Amino acid sequence: METIEIGLLGLGVVGSGAVRTLEENREAIERKVGARVRIKRIAVRDTKKPRMVDVDPALLTDDVGAVLDDPGIRIVCELIGGVHPAREYVLRAIENGKSVVSANKELIAKDGHEPMHRASEQGVDFMFEGSVGGGIPIIQAMKSALAGNRITEVKGIVNGTTNYILSRMTEEGAELADVLRDAQASGYAEADPTNDVEGYDAQYKIAILSSIAFTSRVDTTKVYTEGITRVTAHDIEHAREMGYVIKLLAIGKSAGEDAIQVRVHPALVREGQPLASTLGPFNAILLRGHAVGDVLFYGQGAGMMPTGSAVVGDIMDVCRNILHGSTGRIACTCFQNKRLLPIETVVTRYYIRMYVSDRPGSIAAIAGVFGRHNVSIASVRANAPGSVDAHDTAEAIWVTHNVLEADIRSALAELQTIPEVRSVENWLRVEE
Amino acid sequence: METIEIGLLGLGVVGSGAVRTLEENREAIERKVGARVRIKRIAVRDTKKPRMVDVDPALLTDDVGAVLDDPGIRIVCELIGGVHPAREYVLRAIENGKSVVSANKELIAKDGHEPMHRASEQGVDFMFEGSVGGGIPIIQAMKSALAGNRITEVKGIVNGTTNYILSRMTEEGAELADVLRDAQASGYAEADPTNDVEGYDAQYKIAILSSIAFTSRVDTTKVYTEGITRVTAHDIEHAREMGYVIKLLAIGKSAGEDAIQVRVHPALVREGQPLASTLGPFNAILLRGHAVGDVLFYGQGAGMMPTGSAVVGDIMDVCRNILHGSTGRIACTCFQNKRLLPIETVVTRYYIRMYVSDRPGSIAAIAGVFGRHNVSIASVRANAPGSVDAHDTAEAIWVTHNVLEADIRSALAELQTIPEVRSVENWLRVEE
Repeated sequence: METIEIGLLGLGVVGSGAVRTLEENREAIERKVGARVRIKRIAVRDTKKPRMVDVDPALLTDDVGAVLDDPGIRIVCELIGGVHPAREYVLRAIENGKSVVSANKELIAKDGHEPMHRASEQGVDFMFEGSVGGGIPIIQAMKSALAGNRITEVKGIVNGTTNYILSRMTEEGAELADVLRDAQASGYAEADPTNDVEGYDAQYKIAILSSIAFTSRVDTTKVYTEGITRVTAHDIEHAREMGYVIKLLAIGKSAGEDAIQVRVHPALVREGQPLASTLGPFNAILLRGHAVGDVLFYGQGAGMMPTGSAVVGDIMDVCRNILHGSTGRIACTCFQNKRLLPIETVVTRYYIRMYVSDRPGSIAAIAGVFGRHNVSIASVRANAPGSVDAHDTAEAIWVTHNVLEADIRSALAELQTIPEVRSVENWLRVEE
Repeated sequence: METIEIGLLGLGVVGSGAVRTLEENREAIERKVGARVRIKRIAVRDTKKPRMVDVDPALLTDDVGAVLDDPGIRIVCELIGGVHPAREYVLRAIENGKSVVSANKELIAKDGHEPMHRASEQGVDFMFEGSVGGGIPIIQAMKSALAGNRITEVKGIVNGTTNYILSRMTEEGAELADVLRDAQASGYAEADPTNDVEGYDAQYKIAILSSIAFTSRVDTTKVYTEGITRVTAHDIEHAREMGYVIKLLAIGKSAGEDAIQVRVHPALVREGQPLASTLGPFNAILLRGHAVGDVLFYGQGAGMMPTGSAVVGDIMDVCRNILHGSTGRIACTCFQNKRLLPIETVVTRYYIRMYVSDRPGSIAAIAGVFGRHNVSIASVRANAPGSVDAHDTAEAIWVTHNVLEADIRSALAELQTIPEVRSVENWLRVEE
């Protein structure tokens, strides 16, 4: 049996998961692939640091060149994250004729085109199943088994941290700040939670998914991204009373031949729907294809072993290509450059919570403004005065039919100026 | 761009779905693959029969040799079903150096080893994503992206017809015979529903899934198979009152290094769980891997376009292998021959419904028999007398803790002989 040597860049959470997955199932993995798979070197910043997994200390090096430039190493696993210097390392590995496996969502979302293009030219593989959805095999499915489909929509819950926070806010009626503090203490959220809470992690992931689904490059700076910081326990409670839960959704939709809509924002999702039932650290991704219809994938979206499992799956795939001389067999499929539509072109339903003057005619006046902006109202519920501090103020919850986001925005702008509206407290999209 | 010619055997539901998927998305498919994909011939029994899809009549032939022996055809899609003559056609295509794509679950479950083995020897592909779960990309996921995992369990709802029937029985409180008649009239069940209703279709599918999951051959004749004919509206109602729904489950479990448990039977599933929420013609398949944890796949498990989508995905994969000279890159992974454990070794919970003599001491006597057979009772509920026709008879519903199936069987055998038990009406497994 031939031996294929691989090198790792990074031995953090994902690297450790990959090493452990490989060690714990080595015999079956090698038999499936038809080759011995040997980790030759692991480049880390600090070779003395304690590791989450047992590795021979002789494998560790603080010299990335020992991985990137070793002619014996056929596969480089880039597991350090971030754009720089990961990008330069990946390109150097490819120039050196090595295939690359990466779980680096930020690099692939922001700058994946160049390594993919260079890998094609060099006839090597560049794979990144672990970059989205942890162990959920969504990227390979779109590139291969479902590749015959014209995909019209890809949508899901792709960030476990915010899903965990929203799940706990829902269960406990707690506010974000309190749950976040607790999540940080127990390791479910990072010390600097910006990337998760502000939606950037989900942005990278939906950019990657959309680029594959719609065979198009996706400029992440044009992906509308709104995190969960505006979601309050109060909104979650109102949603619940109407039969909805609030989730951070990442959505990509086809909009005709040459345009797509890609966005990340919290949304009300109908209870009982699969996305609504996705709790805690789980991810769920729904694909809609012209032939296959709806297919849902559900699993742990992050973590050492799930993501490690995806990295090992990619390593096995590259190994098979190496043995058959077919590295580069699935090249970049983002051969289009579709227009990303601005958020104002979205058509969906909206939930709007406001404080209104508690006088006869208030609701009629507000409804009039909505109407003049083409916003059709599905329901309005005004709570009794006294539900808020001021005596002459009531809370009103509006839910619209499908309307254009530009219209809802202009309606809300005008509503802030009329005396019947004390304040627009929040507004969220409703995704049916 | 190179042209790859393919031939079809059969142009029924799945064949038509494959042709339509290909035609409707041809440009993107060819660009992804990097080759023109051309259907050269389609062998059918009756070239004059009306078809569900428009094809050039000149492509049709009633001579299978025109497909199997044409040296220009690189890929043969076997879409006729059944073991014979499909098996002989597949082997002839492989001998002729062609790769084969099949959606024939019966052939692959009963006799898939030989074509896979011959394909390996010939260095061609034999792919069958469409054989299980329609368009759900479960087979490829196990063979590739999740291949690093030691899978401990694969379980699901893999037969849409019985799931549709059970869903309607649950919604309407109707009996099987009535729903079945209606399902046949509306095309959801076949004129001869044996294959679905008796669980054979699910048996083939779980045999295929288990063989890949556990890298072992699976002898279908040793797969315990029980259909849905014993499930009554009455049982569904009792299950509902306890918070369960009844589903036809197909289950494969690893049992140590060299044994597996593979079975098909109706079971009580806790409401709110993903499998319980799988309604109508949908399929759901849950995988449990040592690294990835639980991953759930959900989608339409049958039908023209979903299965056609899977066939086209396989065709694209073979095309890429042809272009890169790497056909045969994923060979058969069933390199073990694990023992299939008999049903008596299953350990699970049980639901038992019986008519009992309505006298003080009856329940105690029955509980005593259960106890002597190591059957530990979780709950028993005896309905008031008069709930059944005879005045001195009550209905008792027992639910056990986890017990050995051999013990439940011996307990039930003894219970049928004691005077306190009028009749054991039904018993079903509970899958938590």
